Amino acid sequence: MQGGTPDVEGCAVVSEDGLMIASAFPAAYDDGRVAGMTSTLLSLGTRTAQELDRGDLEQVFVKGRDGYVIAMNASEGTVLVALTNARAKLGLVFLDMCRAAEQLGRLL
Amino acid sequence: MQGGTPDVEGCAVVSEDGLMIASAFPAAYDDGRVAGMTSTLLSLGTRTAQELDRGDLEQVFVKGRDGYVIAMNASEGTVLVALTNARAKLGLVFLDMCRAAEQLGRLL
Repeated sequence: MQGGTPDVEGCAVVSEDGLMIASAFPAAYDDGRVAGMTSTLLSLGTRTAQELDRGDLEQVFVKGRDGYVIAMNASEGTVLVALTNARAKLGLVFLDMCRAAEQLGRLL
Repeated sequence: MQGGTPDVEGCAVVSEDGLMIASAFPAAYDDGRVAGMTSTLLSLGTRTAQELDRGDLEQVFVKGRDGYVIAMNASEGTVLVALTNARAKLGLVFLDMCRAAEQLGRLL
């Protein structure tokens, strides 16, 4: 996924309870921090979607001035997360993530 | 904003601490619930952006199967939130929200 989209700085697969399953991040990132924040974000996203009648959660996305954090449910109990810089083409990243999530669903 | 984009079901201005300032939602929505979830979402989004080095928060976005929740900082201490159905054209909604946030910045 990182090869296909150069603006993706790192991506990881995290369990729903916040443990890292697999990651490909530059050394500067702390795996535990990424896993913890991803799991918290997904859990609040799920609650938000339910409370505001938006149905089952598909994606949560945080846009900062310097880039994006995008998290989505992959297979049962796992979350795929990607960190991109601010120049990332979101449509392309979403497409790559959906494909990666499908492949993960078959693998896990 | 709702007039310009028919897929936007409702929008509101919420204070950072979760109180409703102004809202235009169908009767089925509970203002308190929308305000509370929006404020929590923005606060976790801010923390996520900081922890994962994405800079200051600009937007948080939750995609459910039946639609989107999009929240962004408007003026100092206020948050603009929009609920859309699943058919919404996101680019258009983002554009309308950015314009509305700018206008709010001048008003508040």
